[in-house]
Amino acid sequence: MMFTYDMSKAGANSLYHYLYQCIKKDIVNGNILAEEQLPSKRNLAQNLGVSVVTVENAYAQLLTEGFIYSLPKKGFFVADIKASDSSKLQQRKTRGKRRRPMENFEESEQVNPKYIADFVSNGADIEAFPFTTWAKITREVLCERQRDLLKVSQGAGTLELRSAIARMLREFRNIQVRPEQIVVGAGTDYLYGLLVQLLGFDKCYAVEDPGWAKISKIYGQYGVKVCHIPIQEESLTDAVKKSDADIVHISPSHHFPTGMVMPIGERYRLLSWAAESPKRYIVEDDYDSEMRMTGKPIPALQNIDVTEKVVYLNTFSKTMTSAIRIAYMVLPPHLAEKFHNELSFYSCTVSNLDQYVMAKFLNLGYYETHINRMRNLYRAKRDALLSAIRKSRLSDVATVYEEDAGLHFILQVQTKLSDAEFCKRARQNGVNIKALSEYYFEAEPSVHRFVINYSSVEKKNVQKAVQALVQACI
Amino acid sequence: MMFTYDMSKAGANSLYHYLYQCIKKDIVNGNILAEEQLPSKRNLAQNLGVSVVTVENAYAQLLTEGFIYSLPKKGFFVADIKASDSSKLQQRKTRGKRRRPMENFEESEQVNPKYIADFVSNGADIEAFPFTTWAKITREVLCERQRDLLKVSQGAGTLELRSAIARMLREFRNIQVRPEQIVVGAGTDYLYGLLVQLLGFDKCYAVEDPGWAKISKIYGQYGVKVCHIPIQEESLTDAVKKSDADIVHISPSHHFPTGMVMPIGERYRLLSWAAESPKRYIVEDDYDSEMRMTGKPIPALQNIDVTEKVVYLNTFSKTMTSAIRIAYMVLPPHLAEKFHNELSFYSCTVSNLDQYVMAKFLNLGYYETHINRMRNLYRAKRDALLSAIRKSRLSDVATVYEEDAGLHFILQVQTKLSDAEFCKRARQNGVNIKALSEYYFEAEPSVHRFVINYSSVEKKNVQKAVQALVQACI
Repeated sequence: MMFTYDMSKAGANSLYHYLYQCIKKDIVNGNILAEEQLPSKRNLAQNLGVSVVTVENAYAQLLTEGFIYSLPKKGFFVADIKASDSSKLQQRKTRGKRRRPMENFEESEQVNPKYIADFVSNGADIEAFPFTTWAKITREVLCERQRDLLKVSQGAGTLELRSAIARMLREFRNIQVRPEQIVVGAGTDYLYGLLVQLLGFDKCYAVEDPGWAKISKIYGQYGVKVCHIPIQEESLTDAVKKSDADIVHISPSHHFPTGMVMPIGERYRLLSWAAESPKRYIVEDDYDSEMRMTGKPIPALQNIDVTEKVVYLNTFSKTMTSAIRIAYMVLPPHLAEKFHNELSFYSCTVSNLDQYVMAKFLNLGYYETHINRMRNLYRAKRDALLSAIRKSRLSDVATVYEEDAGLHFILQVQTKLSDAEFCKRARQNGVNIKALSEYYFEAEPSVHRFVINYSSVEKKNVQKAVQALVQACI
Repeated sequence: MMFTYDMSKAGANSLYHYLYQCIKKDIVNGNILAEEQLPSKRNLAQNLGVSVVTVENAYAQLLTEGFIYSLPKKGFFVADIKASDSSKLQQRKTRGKRRRPMENFEESEQVNPKYIADFVSNGADIEAFPFTTWAKITREVLCERQRDLLKVSQGAGTLELRSAIARMLREFRNIQVRPEQIVVGAGTDYLYGLLVQLLGFDKCYAVEDPGWAKISKIYGQYGVKVCHIPIQEESLTDAVKKSDADIVHISPSHHFPTGMVMPIGERYRLLSWAAESPKRYIVEDDYDSEMRMTGKPIPALQNIDVTEKVVYLNTFSKTMTSAIRIAYMVLPPHLAEKFHNELSFYSCTVSNLDQYVMAKFLNLGYYETHINRMRNLYRAKRDALLSAIRKSRLSDVATVYEEDAGLHFILQVQTKLSDAEFCKRARQNGVNIKALSEYYFEAEPSVHRFVINYSSVEKKNVQKAVQALVQACI
């Protein structure tokens, strides 16, 4: 008979959790069928000899996870769990004729658990997220800021968060900006779109080659002209001059994936190129400057810009967790004015709660503490990895480049294997890895280089991962 | 001399855009003064040697951005753009020479506390937000879902929230959809942008005239062609057929600001228009369908669409609070597939915390309870307001229309005052109010009608507010 569970078997489990597991099992195994009504909470509680609250909590959990649904004034029913298989739509419609392009983008933010080490993922280390502090501040903000939380934030974000960001930039990056120059948005993806609207659909947007493909993909979405600038030539500025570029989107402090830093001379040349025409701008994507492992942080290009030509862009998703959707850009004053005139009618995409929590996290110094902790954590991961490589047979055939800045370095391997073949072998050995060549659009590399994103790798797996790479070489 | 522009200098610009820029510049620089009348479209077209449509489009853009306003049967006038200033940056940089157009958009979401009653604000009643429940669920989610919170959500949103929305739509709106058809985003502003990317930059987007100006403003931002469909003509579909529209963005259940409901015959005609061409779609903006005060909810257009032509769009910002940035759209299956193929690479703009909290809020039935409470609260506000109007001297000169659906009705006033004068007097008496005519783009109303958004009005101020309107009439 249904719904007759021996509650004395709950053991160490809480009663409600045990009950939830029992019902879930029956639904999954098909013992209880879709659309079947569940007993009322009171009845089930009586039958099982538990309190109504226990049943309530079990039902709530089943509801949350979508195993059952409720109809007002009717009660609870078993959901058709086979119907809502998330890929079914695709299976039904596509029958294998198409697949998702760009899947590598999602892949590369999320760690794939089937690997010993996933050097493709550049996600933050989930374990290292200061969850307790974040939850504490969230609870405090919920208590203290009730009315503020329900007010509509300005389009550019709450003044509180923008002020906190301005202060942080001053202290960490020596960037002097006013809160009015800052625009907050739900992720850099969203801000790139705002930038196109701000700088113009009629401009040509140059991105780095090799580079992070999502950037040019997003510019492309807006139908604007996109060109690729080979960054490994003698001078980036010369390459820019040869192109149709109006807007140049770069990461001068730490290029992805090569890890290169733009020399100061080149920075001035690029700024002087931008100064030549009113329609030219530089977008400085400073996505992981906080994670420089050795030496001083590289000064921002924004620092030496006196011509109001640099838009500085950064995100908290890399340093905190991608689940927190807060990014920001710093506009030069005349562009900030243009933004307020033309684009501030947009509602801010970050919820007030997230904005206030982030502001408090910054203002109370937790962010600085967190960054320092992360830097140490990542440095330890990097050092373990470098040391394992040095001690392995990989050191005979491989050289490490650009290891000073986080959160990746380049491994150049002497091998007769093609890049694709090497990566395939590595994956078969349990290590996910991508060749630098895969990040190129038009330019082509001449050597076998691989990108090692180490942020998500567990230290206990470092030895095994390096062994897997050695195996792949042979 | 004014309004003599050399149209041959338009260059790569479209003629209308060049003309719009020229006039805008003259307004901003003070060459054309506030309250000055603009030449009629026909005259200006003749003088400049361009078509009337060019002038029409330029004026429409200026109207949309708030640089000019129109008075029925009188023509177009330059707005007093210096009237308000909101940011420090502007004060410092612009020294009064520019201000923010579009300010009416922000104003209209936020209640202005200086008024006895703000009938322009359509913001939710802050007091009514179930803050304790929301905070409780947030704390629970923070405790229970630690790991899930740090995982990257799918581009379309977490399966959990999408499932919860699908269930809610089934129960409240009788809309049968699968979670895979749902896309979650940080506000409708953001979703409109995704829609343009999904449906195409090469399409012409039709919006309602009169209507919510922000919608056409956002489409305009993407550089797509926008046309205005007069909705008060005999048949909307006939008007659509006369236009270049490919995509029609409407609110069939409850039009803003007229409150009209699209008759079923018209719905079928519009669906049949859409079915005639693969590039045609209907965007059903169902922004306040939950708030129908009398009778049954109006069925969604999506309900009777068997040709996969309707994109259904709604938001929780209206029913909950605008501070919660969660909106969603329901795509017909073939568009859902297109979205997953082409646009799911975008990171979801809603943070995981907000997604899990909203899902739990829906699943535990709190949303339903909240909507019922809000409906009662707003009905009581409306009834108090209607009764005060009935008992006042306003009843001799004013008629109320479209009061069955929330959260606004129309007050038609017999008066010799111009709409602008009536509103000005009302504001002087402490009541913020906007004429229906202000929501028109090209079409022109023939009677004095005013939009009464009552959602944010405090009951204790109802009598005083009605008295203020009576005073304004005299």
